[in-house]
Amino acid sequence: ELELKLEMLEKGGFDHFMLKEIYEQPRSIKDCMRGRIYPEKGLVQLGGIKEFAEKLKNIDRIVIVACGTSWHAGLVGEYLIEEYARIPVEVEYASEFRYRNPIISEKDIVIAVSQSGETADTMAAIELAKEKGATIFGICNVVGASIPRLSHAGVYTHAGPEIGVASTKAFTAQVTVLTLMALYMAQQRGTITQSKLIHLLTELDNIPTMVERCLLSNDSIKEISAKFKDARNFLFLGRGSGFPVALEGALKLKEISYIHAEGYPAAEMKHGPIALIDEEMPVVFIATKNSSYEKVISNIQEVKARKGKVIAIVTEGDTVVKNMADFVIEIPDADEIFLPLLATIPLQLLSYHIAVMRGCNVDQPRNLAKSVTVE
Amino acid sequence: ELELKLEMLEKGGFDHFMLKEIYEQPRSIKDCMRGRIYPEKGLVQLGGIKEFAEKLKNIDRIVIVACGTSWHAGLVGEYLIEEYARIPVEVEYASEFRYRNPIISEKDIVIAVSQSGETADTMAAIELAKEKGATIFGICNVVGASIPRLSHAGVYTHAGPEIGVASTKAFTAQVTVLTLMALYMAQQRGTITQSKLIHLLTELDNIPTMVERCLLSNDSIKEISAKFKDARNFLFLGRGSGFPVALEGALKLKEISYIHAEGYPAAEMKHGPIALIDEEMPVVFIATKNSSYEKVISNIQEVKARKGKVIAIVTEGDTVVKNMADFVIEIPDADEIFLPLLATIPLQLLSYHIAVMRGCNVDQPRNLAKSVTVE
Repeated sequence: ELELKLEMLEKGGFDHFMLKEIYEQPRSIKDCMRGRIYPEKGLVQLGGIKEFAEKLKNIDRIVIVACGTSWHAGLVGEYLIEEYARIPVEVEYASEFRYRNPIISEKDIVIAVSQSGETADTMAAIELAKEKGATIFGICNVVGASIPRLSHAGVYTHAGPEIGVASTKAFTAQVTVLTLMALYMAQQRGTITQSKLIHLLTELDNIPTMVERCLLSNDSIKEISAKFKDARNFLFLGRGSGFPVALEGALKLKEISYIHAEGYPAAEMKHGPIALIDEEMPVVFIATKNSSYEKVISNIQEVKARKGKVIAIVTEGDTVVKNMADFVIEIPDADEIFLPLLATIPLQLLSYHIAVMRGCNVDQPRNLAKSVTVE
Repeated sequence: ELELKLEMLEKGGFDHFMLKEIYEQPRSIKDCMRGRIYPEKGLVQLGGIKEFAEKLKNIDRIVIVACGTSWHAGLVGEYLIEEYARIPVEVEYASEFRYRNPIISEKDIVIAVSQSGETADTMAAIELAKEKGATIFGICNVVGASIPRLSHAGVYTHAGPEIGVASTKAFTAQVTVLTLMALYMAQQRGTITQSKLIHLLTELDNIPTMVERCLLSNDSIKEISAKFKDARNFLFLGRGSGFPVALEGALKLKEISYIHAEGYPAAEMKHGPIALIDEEMPVVFIATKNSSYEKVISNIQEVKARKGKVIAIVTEGDTVVKNMADFVIEIPDADEIFLPLLATIPLQLLSYHIAVMRGCNVDQPRNLAKSVTVE
């Protein structure tokens, strides 16, 4: 009984660690940024990698290695670093990289992303890249873990302990660090104007508040979840940095509800997956007002024309998508660079509620371990 | 009646164009290689790109742009070019590349892959890369199509007209061209020994005969298909160049049978998808005897431990996997570089038979067009 009470205490009044950790994100994202951004000065400081500031100015290529959810954070990082710092980025599955005789030299920076800092495949990838002379940056959550110790430099995510096996706050913290890194590199390389940087950092400073607003949709997401709890399949579609958000949304649903959910870049739908669409196939769209908004709208029309059910993540106040989709979930309007941090939140809640309604063990899903320390 | 007879004639006695085209592959792959390889001399000749032979010696990076099945061929190309020619390759969805302000310069070569040569997103990606000064190589099947005309150089796949909407012989021809390109580049850059090149070209010359042997499994694949025709979901897992084969196998099944099939790199299974595994989830493994054989075996054990049904593509004479998997399909033993050309064949047949048994319109699947000439 005492143990039960302790666990209740640890969960801070939430039914599950996962829900608690979802709700911790305004704070964990803020913790992750603390001391690192100075919006009024237009300055990003990352003490952990500053000795490599010069190297970053002349680098030709970055390789990001990771697994699972961290690999999705890496894909977001690719978009942001390429867009803002103009450095070509390749994102590799650590398990594939390590067995591939990869083309890596002392000119390269390899960024390894891992919540636990103990992921076996990612550690082996680091060892291999180090042998070839690459500089290793680690992005980890657990302080003092193996990956930070193996790395030449790095940035901690400071999300605090994550107990739920399906990663939530660790993912958004990884994305926050990669956003900071992209802006830091852009600042070093002069690929961003000072006024743009001030604008973005000011908005970034406000992201924790926006994440809180995302969490206010919890009740309506719960209602939507009830409609889809018996679904056998799900598609998640997005474009640009919304594509890795779609992948991560699908993975979350797979992990905790055991529904076969798959993420795809929305425009690829016509090259195959659209054959799956019928009245039994719910499709989640990342359909916020950004550079691919019009294109995503036409993808939504294609799905509706084939009787698919559409749940759309939209920008607050959107009316166009609201008239087409079966259900919409609003997120605050922000610069496109911050889309992954906001659009991820409702997808976490959607997976959570569906899994709870299906009676699944949300914090300890079958077959999965919190950190994969074996190959 | 006359029209019906004509169609029968065109199908050459096969029930569907798709099946006819699957069976044409020994010939289409041979046609694709004709006049391009000289095994006894250890020589690859690609007239279409030879004026860029010097450029290829000094190139730092290749970007491959494509959609759908052609994108999977691109992923195979990435493995082969990186492994043999030691040039870093990035494979991009054409639809994402075109809207991403990609980092491309006159130093880069962009390879565009498209069966029809008319894919709208791929054409737009080419236009963008050309504006930035890149050299464009086209890999297309339809002679004189838009993409070959937009490209600076290129190599035709010579697979002949493909009528079935789901690509089969065009895919293996694309993979053949990318294999030839990887070896051509390796030869130009001196990253392969002459004796290795002679060995590989001699085996490549024999691949059409090996593909014929793969086709001999048709009856047993039909029997396996009968067991799985009512499946709702499927996973396809592979490692190394077996990963894009898994993606392509899953896409084929999606396209023509409307079963939700998904491809994954086998080692990523532990980072989420393994939660889906139960007695209702068939898993197809590419488990041939190559550098990742032992790793794949342990993945098979993990699936069997969770009561998943396993269909494994194995090397002729394999006994280890045969004792673990529920069903095995043998393919001839060949160098790892040729795995995609061989392992793809049984997966095409598996999709075909399952789709026929489900009463699907194999040659004209719902919602899909043969070439996607709109965004």
